[in-house]
Amino acid sequence: LLTDFGTADGYVAAMRGVIAARSPQTVVEDASHDIPFGDAVAASFALARYWKLYPPGTVHVVVVDPGVGSSRRAIAVLADERLAVGPDNGVLEPMLQQGARIHAIERDSLFLQPVSQTFHGRDLFAPVAAYLATGGLLEQLGPRVDDPVRITIEPASRDGDAYHGRVVHVDRFGNLITNIRAGPDVLGGEVEVEGKGIVGRVRRTYADAGPGEVLALTGSAGLIEISVRDGSAAQRLLVMRDTRVTLRPPR
Amino acid sequence: LLTDFGTADGYVAAMRGVIAARSPQTVVEDASHDIPFGDAVAASFALARYWKLYPPGTVHVVVVDPGVGSSRRAIAVLADERLAVGPDNGVLEPMLQQGARIHAIERDSLFLQPVSQTFHGRDLFAPVAAYLATGGLLEQLGPRVDDPVRITIEPASRDGDAYHGRVVHVDRFGNLITNIRAGPDVLGGEVEVEGKGIVGRVRRTYADAGPGEVLALTGSAGLIEISVRDGSAAQRLLVMRDTRVTLRPPR
Amino acid sequence: LLTDFGTADGYVAAMRGVIAARSPQTVVEDASHDIPFGDAVAASFALARYWKLYPPGTVHVVVVDPGVGSSRRAIAVLADERLAVGPDNGVLEPMLQQGARIHAIERDSLFLQPVSQTFHGRDLFAPVAAYLATGGLLEQLGPRVDDPVRITIEPASRDGDAYHGRVVHVDRFGNLITNIRAGPDVLGGEVEVEGKGIVGRVRRTYADAGPGEVLALTGSAGLIEISVRDGSAAQRLLVMRDTRVTLRPPR
Repeated sequence: LLTDFGTADGYVAAMRGVIAARSPQTVVEDASHDIPFGDAVAASFALARYWKLYPPGTVHVVVVDPGVGSSRRAIAVLADERLAVGPDNGVLEPMLQQGARIHAIERDSLFLQPVSQTFHGRDLFAPVAAYLATGGLLEQLGPRVDDPVRITIEPASRDGDAYHGRVVHVDRFGNLITNIRAGPDVLGGEVEVEGKGIVGRVRRTYADAGPGEVLALTGSAGLIEISVRDGSAAQRLLVMRDTRVTLRPPR
Repeated sequence: LLTDFGTADGYVAAMRGVIAARSPQTVVEDASHDIPFGDAVAASFALARYWKLYPPGTVHVVVVDPGVGSSRRAIAVLADERLAVGPDNGVLEPMLQQGARIHAIERDSLFLQPVSQTFHGRDLFAPVAAYLATGGLLEQLGPRVDDPVRITIEPASRDGDAYHGRVVHVDRFGNLITNIRAGPDVLGGEVEVEGKGIVGRVRRTYADAGPGEVLALTGSAGLIEISVRDGSAAQRLLVMRDTRVTLRPPR
Repeated sequence: LLTDFGTADGYVAAMRGVIAARSPQTVVEDASHDIPFGDAVAASFALARYWKLYPPGTVHVVVVDPGVGSSRRAIAVLADERLAVGPDNGVLEPMLQQGARIHAIERDSLFLQPVSQTFHGRDLFAPVAAYLATGGLLEQLGPRVDDPVRITIEPASRDGDAYHGRVVHVDRFGNLITNIRAGPDVLGGEVEVEGKGIVGRVRRTYADAGPGEVLALTGSAGLIEISVRDGSAAQRLLVMRDTRVTLRPPR
């Protein structure tokens, strides 16, 4: 389960209750309920970190859904043997990138009735997740969808030796995660951040920087991220998502 | 499990450890540990959202317990085939409203010894929950209770066409949830908030309001709530729990 | 699982995914992901609250690891029939105190490859936890470790009737938990806090103090803690970890 609901209002527990009632054998795990409100990009970034690490047959439920109650579609997808359900607003982007099969969720006999205007997590996504977790078929949910809403991030580019990209996520530690995949040739090179100039150098690991030093390294998703050893790069540099970043190999 | 403990101090894990040791087959789920400190009303509101969605036989554990160590009773209740344990301070109100059978928890042979003065979640409620989850009988816990502490909220009222109620909960999204259940006759009507005047109109769904517009709609618990599309009504209107709200059908 | 990762970035879900894939039968529970960043002392304090309450065979995973990517060791320990894995930085201190058997984790055939420089929770600790949870042997992980990093807290002392100690943890409720274990002789005695003078008296339970009164009592870990009834002692007294505390029995 991945949502922006927090837990204190009982919304998540309502979803869990529906799944427990319909599919008592299903193991339900929380990915997070702390996605920033309505931030489909952040949700898709979090999902990218874990969806494929779970075993085949897992059903990922992603409800970050500012358009609930509008005419936005609900979709179910199958990619690389993992399933997912969510609003058609890009939250499932990492699975769509893998050539997912996508169906609209329209089979209202599965839904909790009456379906509310504000809480499809409980009334629609939880019951459909339980249906899929117990062997229900994607094809039975509704017609095939060929034009899902996508979240497109301009890819990083290369210009001679330099890599140009952007900050695509700021994590809880204040790491500025970019969309740049760089080779070992940049080790020791300079890191430039839009509006801040050269902020530090590319290192192999935190320990290669001094305490409090700004560095860039290849993070756990294979992407370059800008960090402060024992600190927060976001707080130090006051940089947000979408800021441009350039890496240059050492001369 | 529903508490105001947060997780960082290990209190919740201590409760889980006790249950895991006494009842290894029991599936333990977190509802929330982020209830505001000692706020029995908020806990009961969260519980109301989910207790009945879980299947019969579920044991709900609610520990929001500012009176721990005093002479307040601990109780176990059975309502509509679901069980619950908690302090006798109103946190179990939604189940009490359904004609629950209530017993005091006094069977100290079940408790972790010595019972601390500050942490009945670990020493008393977790072991009793494990006992009930493994088929233990309510009647064996202690004498019947006929006078549980109740949380009474003045019901909404009707005066001609107008509905008068109050804000009974502010959720994480800043929605102001009232105690008013209104029919479709109020659609398009005006929403008045104590001290703020008329703040917006009643809509069917968020999408019927413009971005940033204040609206009221029927929320997922069947109650009227005041919202801001893509925003927070609590922040916009600076309104707290207990504030009076009036709805009037369109003329 | 006990970490300082928060949940919103998907790091915890990545760890859960690895365990689910390698050991589908293992029940995975969250202790907390809200440990303050890199605070090994807070992590060890939380672990102390719960590790032994879980049944024998439980594998505790503690990843509060500011030294990830450096030459700090990763270790696995066995104490009192419970297992744990974590960085060798003191987070497992409560288990080390019980004469744990300790092995370095060096068997890289178990790891997710390539092992990242920043996320050993996913690449190393989760797979090793799954290995241990499915019956893997500690001895197979790497050589025995006889010199683990320890977190040593100066013990409380006694001077005549007075107890002298320090605040070792501040919990979510603002309770100031000390390292003092005192007998019933201090009931009614005075509590002195460094820089604040005498702040209140030792009571048996919260209910023995008036609303808003500062008191000290024996908390659920058997340690003296300073509290405010229906309030926060940390906020009232503006006291932090390591502050000196003295208790004196009543004259």
